[in-house]
Amino acid sequence: MAVGNIKLSIHYDGSGYHGWQAQSDRPTIQAEVERAIEELTGQRIIVNGASRTDAGVSALGQVANIIIDTPIPTENLARALTGILPEDIAIAEAVDVPDEFDAISSAKSKLYRYTIYTGPTPPVLQIRHCWHIRAKLDAGCMERGAKLFVDTKDFKSFASASDRRQSSVRTVISCDVKADGEWIYIDVEADGFLYNMVRNIVGTLVEVGRGRWGPEKITGILEAKDRTAAGPIAPAAGLCLMRIDY
Amino acid sequence: MAVGNIKLSIHYDGSGYHGWQAQSDRPTIQAEVERAIEELTGQRIIVNGASRTDAGVSALGQVANIIIDTPIPTENLARALTGILPEDIAIAEAVDVPDEFDAISSAKSKLYRYTIYTGPTPPVLQIRHCWHIRAKLDAGCMERGAKLFVDTKDFKSFASASDRRQSSVRTVISCDVKADGEWIYIDVEADGFLYNMVRNIVGTLVEVGRGRWGPEKITGILEAKDRTAAGPIAPAAGLCLMRIDY
Repeated sequence: MAVGNIKLSIHYDGSGYHGWQAQSDRPTIQAEVERAIEELTGQRIIVNGASRTDAGVSALGQVANIIIDTPIPTENLARALTGILPEDIAIAEAVDVPDEFDAISSAKSKLYRYTIYTGPTPPVLQIRHCWHIRAKLDAGCMERGAKLFVDTKDFKSFASASDRRQSSVRTVISCDVKADGEWIYIDVEADGFLYNMVRNIVGTLVEVGRGRWGPEKITGILEAKDRTAAGPIAPAAGLCLMRIDY
Repeated sequence: MAVGNIKLSIHYDGSGYHGWQAQSDRPTIQAEVERAIEELTGQRIIVNGASRTDAGVSALGQVANIIIDTPIPTENLARALTGILPEDIAIAEAVDVPDEFDAISSAKSKLYRYTIYTGPTPPVLQIRHCWHIRAKLDAGCMERGAKLFVDTKDFKSFASASDRRQSSVRTVISCDVKADGEWIYIDVEADGFLYNMVRNIVGTLVEVGRGRWGPEKITGILEAKDRTAAGPIAPAAGLCLMRIDY
């Protein structure tokens, strides 16, 4: 086989890593995947990940592409790499894609899920993958607030100050709040996200769920175009990248 | 308040600990709870846990009792201790019990759940709390086999060789296999368990699920009263102590 472009679907528990992006001195998902590829193929290549997830953020649908020349059939690559990777990282799928496919620039939309637990006892088995809030949240109010994020809007109030991208306009395709017993799931799909945007949206919806703010306040926060207008940032642990569509 | 006997309900993710029982040099659940009690009350006491769960085994229903003299109201104890404990250990409840209550000898029955995942990709977010078997298992056959464990029987074939208790007769109250998509849950309730008994039962049921053995073989394994007759032991990670009845 000649040099090919391969798309990888990657799952990971981010709680033990300093995020996706390779850093010289700390364990990251990208570094682990690159090391596994080198071990399997002998080739030191860059894994081009679609989302640079932060420390503590998990993924069940990260996507990356690699340009590689290997005799290993693509259909065997996912399982072979998963066998080498730590148990909290897995390659769910590897498929050949056209040369022009780029995991970052070809992405059409991304879906994140944020998980909250509201029961009295910390959910010890899921504690690294949720935000434990020991309070009743009004999921109905949160859902009404969530709908105000949907559409093409300026999300400057929900971007980290360190986000230096020129435009803070994004299109939120859907924003849903689902309650299941003491669990609350917030699913946000958009054509792209500003830095910390989902966690800032969640922090704001939690203020609504606590009854501190009415859902309609979200309209004013969006109009303020000011980070300090929104709620506090939600912790990284509850965030999971679920899917990227191309 | 005078010296009182308090029953604790304890939840923990066992994946980061060397089991329940305190050891001089390694982190254990018992040692963490005893340290938290000392930090909160200044008293160095023994936490009398009902089940000495092994390294890697989790619990959502461990029970222990402590004899302690503290001005802290019992109803505040669970939350105060949970606030001090590591995030993967929680005290779900603390209640006053009569002096004669002993978490070990007063126990009437225990319920364990064993979790198996059979999908192709390792479930990275639950990997420390399940056994990942990359094969289809016939849950119907496993369920038929599970029923053969129910009743008062000699479980010598399912006890670790290191179990030195005089009698290997136990009463299994229920043994159920439930499939939910690619997840399989095996719930075993008994008046008591021999060392490694649930994990040996699960290892045997998995051989049945794989089709290597018919369910009826379990009757012969029980009759053999020989550990080598049963299937291989299932990994600790999938096991969780769910409930103890008194």
